[in-house]
Order: sequence, then C-alpha cells, then structure tokens
Amino acid sequence: MKQKLNILKIGGNVIDNDNVLYSFLLDFAKLDGLKILVHGGGKKATELAKKLNLETKMVGGRRVTDAANLEVVTMVYAGLLNKNIVAQLQKNGCNAIGLSGADGNSIKAHKRIVKDIDYGFVGDVDAVNVNVIAVLLNQNLTPVFCAVTHDKKGQLLNTNADTIASEIASALVNVYKVNLTYIFEKSGVLKDVSDENSVIELINSNSYESLKKDGLIADGMLPKLENCFYALNKGVEEIHIANPSIIADKNVVHTKLIL
Amino acid sequence: MKQKLNILKIGGNVIDNDNVLYSFLLDFAKLDGLKILVHGGGKKATELAKKLNLETKMVGGRRVTDAANLEVVTMVYAGLLNKNIVAQLQKNGCNAIGLSGADGNSIKAHKRIVKDIDYGFVGDVDAVNVNVIAVLLNQNLTPVFCAVTHDKKGQLLNTNADTIASEIASALVNVYKVNLTYIFEKSGVLKDVSDENSVIELINSNSYESLKKDGLIADGMLPKLENCFYALNKGVEEIHIANPSIIADKNVVHTKLIL
Repeated sequence: MKQKLNILKIGGNVIDNDNVLYSFLLDFAKLDGLKILVHGGGKKATELAKKLNLETKMVGGRRVTDAANLEVVTMVYAGLLNKNIVAQLQKNGCNAIGLSGADGNSIKAHKRIVKDIDYGFVGDVDAVNVNVIAVLLNQNLTPVFCAVTHDKKGQLLNTNADTIASEIASALVNVYKVNLTYIFEKSGVLKDVSDENSVIELINSNSYESLKKDGLIADGMLPKLENCFYALNKGVEEIHIANPSIIADKNVVHTKLIL
Repeated sequence: MKQKLNILKIGGNVIDNDNVLYSFLLDFAKLDGLKILVHGGGKKATELAKKLNLETKMVGGRRVTDAANLEVVTMVYAGLLNKNIVAQLQKNGCNAIGLSGADGNSIKAHKRIVKDIDYGFVGDVDAVNVNVIAVLLNQNLTPVFCAVTHDKKGQLLNTNADTIASEIASALVNVYKVNLTYIFEKSGVLKDVSDENSVIELINSNSYESLKKDGLIADGMLPKLENCFYALNKGVEEIHIANPSIIADKNVVHTKLIL
C-alpha cells in the first residue's frame, strides 16, 4: 500500500503576514506523516522591487520577469522566505529542507515560449524529479519548495507556486497516496468573492464547467483551478482549497475538488 | 577504508566575478568523487545593502549584522548566489543541492556572545549534522553551502564561510578522508601581499607561530589560518590555500598546511 503524502501550498496573505505564517508553520510542523510545503511570496518581492526602483509588471496574475526582477524573485523566494520558513519549521521540530527546482534538479522547466506576451524568465514545468524528493522524504526530511525552477542550462526561472504544487503532486501519485491542499486567506472557492459564507463545498469536472460558464470563477481563481484539475486528471484523488484552519480541523468549511 | 571527500571553499574575487566563478564551477563539476562546495559572497551583499541605503559595518573582517542586513545576507547568500551556483553546476552535470545551515538542520549555531563588540545576528557554529550531509553525498548529490546558519530556535545567523568550511571538514573526518581547499584570488599565503611570487608553500604549526610573530600573517589571513589549524587539530590531514587553477592542476604553486 502506498504511503500517504500531504502536499500543502501556501500563498496570498498567509505568507505576507508573519503572524498568520508562523501560526500556520506551527500547525504544519505537527502534521503527522510525510509532507511537502510549497510557498509563493508575491508581496515581499514586489516590495523589494519597489525599493530597488524596478517596475513590477503583472499580466493575468503572472509576474513579467526581466533579469533584474528574476534576481529579486530569487533573493526573496529562495532566500528570505524559504530560509525563514525552514528555520521556523526547524524550531517547531520539523526537519525541513528548502529547495528551488535547481536543487537536486528537483524541478526542470523551460522558459515560457513567447506568444502574445513575453513573460521573460518565467518557467513552465517539464519534469519533477521523483527520485530525489523520495530520497529526502525517506529520511524524514520535509521538502519546502519555493517558486523558482531552472532549465538545466544554467538559467533560473520564476515559476507559479500553484503550478509547482500541482506538478509535484501529479509526479508523486505513482509512489504516494497524495493529498493536495491549497491554503490561502479565504475559506475556499467563493460564489461571491466578498462573502466568506458563500463557499462552494464541492466542485467536480462538470460543475466546474458550469461555474466557468456562469462567470462565477474568474481572475486569479481560474489558473488555480486549472492547476487543480490538471492534478486530478493526473491521478491526484482529491484536492482541498481552504484557509489555514484546515490543518487543525479537516472538517472546517472549505472547497473540495474531485474529478 | 574511508571514502575521499573534497571540500572546497570559494570566496573573494572568485565569487564576485562571474567569469572567474563560472570557469571555477566548470572545473568543480568535473572533479571526481564526493565533494562539497562552500561559498561566501561579501561584495554582492554590500552592493545590495547600499542600494537599500543600509549601512555596512565591518569589524575585523566580520560583517556586523543587524536585522535589515541579515535579510540582505539571507537574500544574497542563500538566494541569489547559492541558487545561481547550483543552477550552473546542474548545467555542468553536477547534481548540486544548495543548503543553508537551517536546511536539514545541517549547521546549528548560536548568536555570538557580546563581549567588546555586538556583531548582531552573527553565528558561531555549535554542530554540523554529519548524518544529513552523508545521506546527500551517498545519493551522489553535491551539497553547496552558503554562509547562513540557524540556532534551531527560528533565528537565521550570518556565519563566516571559512569557518563553515573548517567546521564541516572537522565534523566529517570521522566518516571520510577529507581534503579541504580554500580558493581565493591569490596564489596562496603570500610573504609580501603585493607579490604573487612570494607564496609560502608549506606552513606547519611551528612555522605558523613564527610567521605570526614576524607579522607576516595579519589582517584577513589570520582568521583564515586560525580556521585551518582548527580543522587540522580536529583531524583534517592537510589543507590547501590556492587560486582557482588548483582544481585543474594539483601541483600549481600554492600553500599547503599541515600540523
């Protein structure tokens, strides 16, 4: 029987607010069994870019990443955030190890092909190195991935953290029974973005199509759900979208996604 | 019989100049057998601190590290430099994995006790986690350490890269036959700092004491050699101080240190 593996992705306000982050990391450290954390880190990179007088250009929720912004992303995601998260987890008794996709060649990507928009040094994932991740997990290490990958030609690439989480989950389904959870500041996918009580508790492929047609899923939620259904189609059995309280209480109101 | 392990530390101009660095990384990737790279990265951190209008204060070659400068150090050492070095090594076919001391709790340190000078968030090493490093080496992974450690209480600490190299070497002598090499822009320990032809080719404990007495070793070279003799006393058999050409040619003129 496959071992259970929890993959959690944190983003949004959960990573921008130290109190929320540290409280989450306390709960995450207590989670039993094999686990992986994936983190984004948008706001702090934007703040540093601003201090350095760099322009931050976003298209469709994606950061357009020129060479100078890639340096910022690498410093903030792989350095500041990743190492502070790892240090907090170590404090909490969780033997975390921080990784970019370059480390152990864990996530290989390619620079996004230019069609309408040149996203610059943004990566689309080609391959997740199941072997190196399994080696770390077998040693009771907890991999903590930031949103930076590489192309194995020496180029680092800024890569969406939601995508990294779904790619890792999809690659590991053959080895583990994977549970993927996206954690952010809201209680789940909301029918009405301004109403925390409008959580859609279950979405499957059919209802997803209806929700899209009715315009109830749009903007930033659209790529997030595309990532989810990608992973479900690859064999991840269920995915949860929730706020941080789901770690302590699995039954809190949130969105569950199935095929 | 113990397996051979090469530990190389790069600093100074070797890391500040991309051409020199990339050429070194090409040679390093080709090195046969188990290996570990340790890197400093002073200048780039100073540059970023300047751009952010932070004061950089050095005492005795050590950076006084307040909270803001620790963020800079973490971003530059653990992020920008470490990940770019790893990406270059991956390009060159070396399966590198970048680490701070927090990752896998590989290097635990404590905040330096304040005596005459408060160095701020500067760490003195307590323990190197031989087990986690051996696990990575056994998987043919090449650990690449930056000069950041942690105290296992959630605090990252700026830690001298020379010290990290000698502490890792000292900790691993029980498991491996360790060869430690410090690589920088000069050809070795020079009798006359301005004369590259004045390399002292062999230093042992006795001649070291004489050289110190005669004032031929001073400034930045003093803590470097203290680190070397610390490691020699812990059982590292020989240590080399050289410029990057030593990787391709072991017999190039350089300084060899023995007890």
